Amino acid sequence: MYSVSVRDHFMIAHSFTGEIFGPAQRLHGATFVVDVEFRRADLDRDGIVVDIGRAGEVLRATLADLNFRNLDEAAEFAGRNTTTEFLARVIFDRVVAAIGRGDLGAAARGVTSVRVTLHESHVASASYDGAVS
Amino acid sequence: MYSVSVRDHFMIAHSFTGEIFGPAQRLHGATFVVDVEFRRADLDRDGIVVDIGRAGEVLRATLADLNFRNLDEAAEFAGRNTTTEFLARVIFDRVVAAIGRGDLGAAARGVTSVRVTLHESHVASASYDGAVS
Amino acid sequence: MYSVSVRDHFMIAHSFTGEIFGPAQRLHGATFVVDVEFRRADLDRDGIVVDIGRAGEVLRATLADLNFRNLDEAAEFAGRNTTTEFLARVIFDRVVAAIGRGDLGAAARGVTSVRVTLHESHVASASYDGAVS
Amino acid sequence: MYSVSVRDHFMIAHSFTGEIFGPAQRLHGATFVVDVEFRRADLDRDGIVVDIGRAGEVLRATLADLNFRNLDEAAEFAGRNTTTEFLARVIFDRVVAAIGRGDLGAAARGVTSVRVTLHESHVASASYDGAVS
Amino acid sequence: MYSVSVRDHFMIAHSFTGEIFGPAQRLHGATFVVDVEFRRADLDRDGIVVDIGRAGEVLRATLADLNFRNLDEAAEFAGRNTTTEFLARVIFDRVVAAIGRGDLGAAARGVTSVRVTLHESHVASASYDGAVS
Amino acid sequence: MYSVSVRDHFMIAHSFTGEIFGPAQRLHGATFVVDVEFRRADLDRDGIVVDIGRAGEVLRATLADLNFRNLDEAAEFAGRNTTTEFLARVIFDRVVAAIGRGDLGAAARGVTSVRVTLHESHVASASYDGAVS
Repeated sequence: MYSVSVRDHFMIAHSFTGEIFGPAQRLHGATFVVDVEFRRADLDRDGIVVDIGRAGEVLRATLADLNFRNLDEAAEFAGRNTTTEFLARVIFDRVVAAIGRGDLGAAARGVTSVRVTLHESHVASASYDGAVS
Repeated sequence: MYSVSVRDHFMIAHSFTGEIFGPAQRLHGATFVVDVEFRRADLDRDGIVVDIGRAGEVLRATLADLNFRNLDEAAEFAGRNTTTEFLARVIFDRVVAAIGRGDLGAAARGVTSVRVTLHESHVASASYDGAVS
Repeated sequence: MYSVSVRDHFMIAHSFTGEIFGPAQRLHGATFVVDVEFRRADLDRDGIVVDIGRAGEVLRATLADLNFRNLDEAAEFAGRNTTTEFLARVIFDRVVAAIGRGDLGAAARGVTSVRVTLHESHVASASYDGAVS
Repeated sequence: MYSVSVRDHFMIAHSFTGEIFGPAQRLHGATFVVDVEFRRADLDRDGIVVDIGRAGEVLRATLADLNFRNLDEAAEFAGRNTTTEFLARVIFDRVVAAIGRGDLGAAARGVTSVRVTLHESHVASASYDGAVS
Repeated sequence: MYSVSVRDHFMIAHSFTGEIFGPAQRLHGATFVVDVEFRRADLDRDGIVVDIGRAGEVLRATLADLNFRNLDEAAEFAGRNTTTEFLARVIFDRVVAAIGRGDLGAAARGVTSVRVTLHESHVASASYDGAVS
Repeated sequence: MYSVSVRDHFMIAHSFTGEIFGPAQRLHGATFVVDVEFRRADLDRDGIVVDIGRAGEVLRATLADLNFRNLDEAAEFAGRNTTTEFLARVIFDRVVAAIGRGDLGAAARGVTSVRVTLHESHVASASYDGAVS
């Protein structure tokens, strides 16, 4: 299995609902450093999994939609805790959709699974890893 | 598959038995920077894999039992080489036991697998990755 | 010159005032990974600059006062942009005050300068470096 | 599953063929920081996956054959784009061959899979992960 | 003293002249991960050293001129070894010129010194640190 | 001012004397990841501060003398706490002596200052920074 990973980041405000979150129930924020790994069994004719430059652009565009926002006011997340693991899934879904639309090029449709990891600090991170159907 | 990871460290002395270890047969020591990754197929009702704060506390408590010790004098490791990979398994077993006891909360019993990685330097690490039964 | 550095982090929401900040004028947030470096010309009688454990506790206590907050609502920062470099100075002042109060032990009063660095992402950071008077 | 990882690096020049590569069609170069992870279900009699020291030496020897070269002039890669993912596979094949030759010791023949990751910058990497047959 | 740092990277081919360089006399290459630190005694009216976003753009533009090139064919470096420390100085000079031209904004002319660090691998780096006259 | 830095590591056992050290009074150990930075005002005729390869070899040789040892039994440190900052100075003195002996080449005698940093974990480090007389 081959893979290629690219990294970028975004910065948001949010708060959580539920006693388990303690002081994180207050409005606070986070920088999320995001790694997206694309996987496939074989390389394409150019010898790549996906073009690293293009993957970086797709990641940048995906994060731009979340960057510099208060997620508590985002209609698409109403009633949900925008935890690190939840956001990993959100970004996974959007990256997979971008592959489907051909934003990474036609050959990138050969990607069979994707892993998205969000680092919220030097000591904590969360991921979503799933198949591309 | 969702996952959450937390990081902490511990510092120990030990020596190894066996010619393959060369100078590491002498009493020496190590800082181990430890990552524990918790995995499950779905998020719980709060939208989390496990509470990151609570996971950090469980890891801290687990490592406190090993920290600032000479492992050559630890009765529980008598006759064993406390290699990095061996210690990864020791910490895995203890973290899994903590999940079973409910130390990470009742919802954390939904965790299906755990990976423990010990970084012994900037160029070497070891892991144990297994199912939570 | 000797130095000792410790690291911890905090997570806040804030917004900036001024066209130069572009989209960062909106309410967003950040994780700040903080390094505090303590410096002095000679070691104390125990052979240390400051006790690393105690330095870590002072840093944790200093950041606890900022952690999980919306800095736009913090009275002490009213009318100021809480930029990364501004916050580096805030933490510098508070750490220096902690040294003066003896929170790091009497010997730590030998510290002559301190540097505080805040990493806001994997690609950007800011510092304040000054003498301890 | 147990694993052990070691890290080293090599520095090469190369160029790519294909419009998708844009400016990387020009002769340029890269530092590749390489992680090799060795995996097996059980530890050997010494309590290890492979000897970390010996694994580091095998990696060093493997990379020495590529280091400080212009890969465009390497006969073994003629007609191929030496992309990061392609090189991950090349190193995988050579490390697996080294295991087979016994370069990591007889016990290392218990290794069942290997993952090779090449970091080409602080924001991009590629891997090959496969079984050892 | 306040400072702000931004990071980016570039990838080049080159070779060195002189027996001291051993195998690095052959055509090879490197990824350079570049940190540029801007320093000044006081913050400007917006509470910043320089705008981090704008600093990142200036660094990107500066590196774009070097990226994906064979430096052995660069007329401006003819007869010089483009070592890591030499390139740190080249980038320093170009960033200081950008400040002078106002590319970082008028307020950035308050910057009094700059440090440029090039990381050529996980184990080696070089810097140039100088005053802005 | 130009500088070049190289990194390596060593692993030791030791204990500390003094109540301030708490549990670190027990025999334990550490991995120290060591950065040595060499500085000078101008490059030599080859365009370097010191040869990075040779600097790495000198660092490796310096650390080999400490690696895989119990420092409590080292005659040269009798009656001293081998704290991280103390060891930074020990390595500084030995690297400076190596420069004086010409181990880094005749041109390296142009180095005017050296900084040695020991990282004892992902959250703590210590340094000694001094002139080369």
